[in-house]
Amino acid sequence: MRVALTLGRRGQGRVWPNPAVGCVIVKEGRVVGRGWTQPGGRPHAETEALARAGAAARGATAYVTLEPCAHHGRTPPCADALAAAGVGRVVAPFADSDPRVAGQGFDRLRRAGVAVTTGVLAEEAAEDHAGFFLRLAEGRPRVTLKLALTLDGRIATATGESQWITGPAARREVHALRARHDAVMVGAGTARADDPSLTVRGLGIAHQPVRVAVSRRLDLPLMGQLARTAREVPVWLCHGPEADRETRAAWEGLGARLLPCPEAVGGGLDPAGVLQALGAAGLTRVFCEGGGALAATLLGADLVDELVVMSAGLALGAEGRPALGALGLARLAEAPRFRLAETRALGGDVLHRWRRG
Amino acid sequence: MRVALTLGRRGQGRVWPNPAVGCVIVKEGRVVGRGWTQPGGRPHAETEALARAGAAARGATAYVTLEPCAHHGRTPPCADALAAAGVGRVVAPFADSDPRVAGQGFDRLRRAGVAVTTGVLAEEAAEDHAGFFLRLAEGRPRVTLKLALTLDGRIATATGESQWITGPAARREVHALRARHDAVMVGAGTARADDPSLTVRGLGIAHQPVRVAVSRRLDLPLMGQLARTAREVPVWLCHGPEADRETRAAWEGLGARLLPCPEAVGGGLDPAGVLQALGAAGLTRVFCEGGGALAATLLGADLVDELVVMSAGLALGAEGRPALGALGLARLAEAPRFRLAETRALGGDVLHRWRRG
Repeated sequence: MRVALTLGRRGQGRVWPNPAVGCVIVKEGRVVGRGWTQPGGRPHAETEALARAGAAARGATAYVTLEPCAHHGRTPPCADALAAAGVGRVVAPFADSDPRVAGQGFDRLRRAGVAVTTGVLAEEAAEDHAGFFLRLAEGRPRVTLKLALTLDGRIATATGESQWITGPAARREVHALRARHDAVMVGAGTARADDPSLTVRGLGIAHQPVRVAVSRRLDLPLMGQLARTAREVPVWLCHGPEADRETRAAWEGLGARLLPCPEAVGGGLDPAGVLQALGAAGLTRVFCEGGGALAATLLGADLVDELVVMSAGLALGAEGRPALGALGLARLAEAPRFRLAETRALGGDVLHRWRRG
Repeated sequence: MRVALTLGRRGQGRVWPNPAVGCVIVKEGRVVGRGWTQPGGRPHAETEALARAGAAARGATAYVTLEPCAHHGRTPPCADALAAAGVGRVVAPFADSDPRVAGQGFDRLRRAGVAVTTGVLAEEAAEDHAGFFLRLAEGRPRVTLKLALTLDGRIATATGESQWITGPAARREVHALRARHDAVMVGAGTARADDPSLTVRGLGIAHQPVRVAVSRRLDLPLMGQLARTAREVPVWLCHGPEADRETRAAWEGLGARLLPCPEAVGGGLDPAGVLQALGAAGLTRVFCEGGGALAATLLGADLVDELVVMSAGLALGAEGRPALGALGLARLAEAPRFRLAETRALGGDVLHRWRRG
């Protein structure tokens, strides 16, 4: 199952809105087939693994990281395919919460005489599928917020100098994290100040996540990196009702996709509304890279599921640009809290990952 | 030698101005004596270990974490004692840089027919003795700066609420760190705002480090924790030439020790001058617990040798009180940089230790 989980993660970032599933077929202690959800969401992991196993699947055990599907979509149900191939036993972490599956995959298998074992590595699998489940349950993608900062929580000098605070290993990790998410998201301030390309580079990965910029009034540079490359790598712009009609047309002409989002009561875009729009468009995993205003808005609305902090060994002092904008907290007890998932050295920096408390 | 280093660390914080040395005497693969520098700086580790070994020291190997002393101080030279006891071989990391020793301990041993091996675990030993050596070389104690902060580098809410940002394990670690330093130091702002006792509590340790407050004008609460307990646990006050004569007399009356320090050109106490005064008074290891102004002053003057950062899993946003005051940096390249020594989970928080780059 651990191998199946690792295989499944290969699909992360490129199978949305489908889950990234892994499958390993084992016969007499030997792996006879391996598969994972293919780019775009199909073929499914089971189909891939069965094709490799061929006749060896008869009487074998299939380890699948999610309940095999039971519905006829663009592919026939995987539960039927596993049974037809003569698989003797299916091991899975848990049932799929997709209402089209929801236990029916296991039922179909059992009715066909296939033994079913569940509960294996359920916690790890739940983590891997968290974005897929969250979109089904709440209509929004899972949000990972990245903060790359100094020891004293700064992301740039007072004059905006930020290259480089973290080292090459941390920057490489950022590209790997981008590749494992469906989309990379930044606020308008960062898009203007840094003019980032937000692409995955230097890892030998051809796949690119969607690039999302959040800008209420669409005041983004029409000559910037995002604008210039919107036909090569998707650019989605979350904007408010006030966004100028001509600007919208210009961005659409450049190849960007526009996602109208509701405004919050106090002004600015409603962060929950932005995520609902992204969920409706199919995204399950979003990687937010700032800036401080967008990060604070998401944290303040309790919409950050995972925090990836990269702390560099330097200090910039109180004039440095803060990693987070104002949160408007009156008391310490109101502060958004996270529980530690991992800490490790990353080149000369420290990486710490936190999950919603 | 590793055991000897561990023994030596038992003396840290209570043997200043002497080095905290450990000694293990091994004969035929068996430990026959162990010792470490005793509180106040004597008896020395070798004396202690030899007393325990007795006649078994004859022909044995003594592992000592610093060159045995060669000078007649309040105790006879340890080099002579080791030779007299018939020790066959002495293993040490390196020579003592104290001019009264400086290789003469090894010479005395060799002349007495004792074999001497050096270079063993020199890096670890250099770290342990760094404060002692720094005071000899530059006249100042080694400075460890502690920062206990949120993920976004804040130490309190806008209204000053700070209890508790880090968890119980991190707070226990702070007490353990206090105990291993000769003195705990805070700035005047922290002394006024938090009225801290700065004592070691909850660890079953009776020894208390000196408590140092840095206050140019001695505007510290005369009814506070430090004032009330100055006769039980030493309180040293670093002040400037402007400090009011009556206030000085009042503090001396309460039992505090006053250390006059020079002012910096731009106003405020000169941080190098403060550390020189503390070094002249015998301190080798100082643990600075803030606040943000003192921490920034020390960092800005490149006087922080080790940084202990405790990051808690919460965010306070831009209105939160920053961990560091202004550093006045124009460029990123001017920022004080540190190299990572360690990172690990500490309860629900992350501890990362950094050394001067």
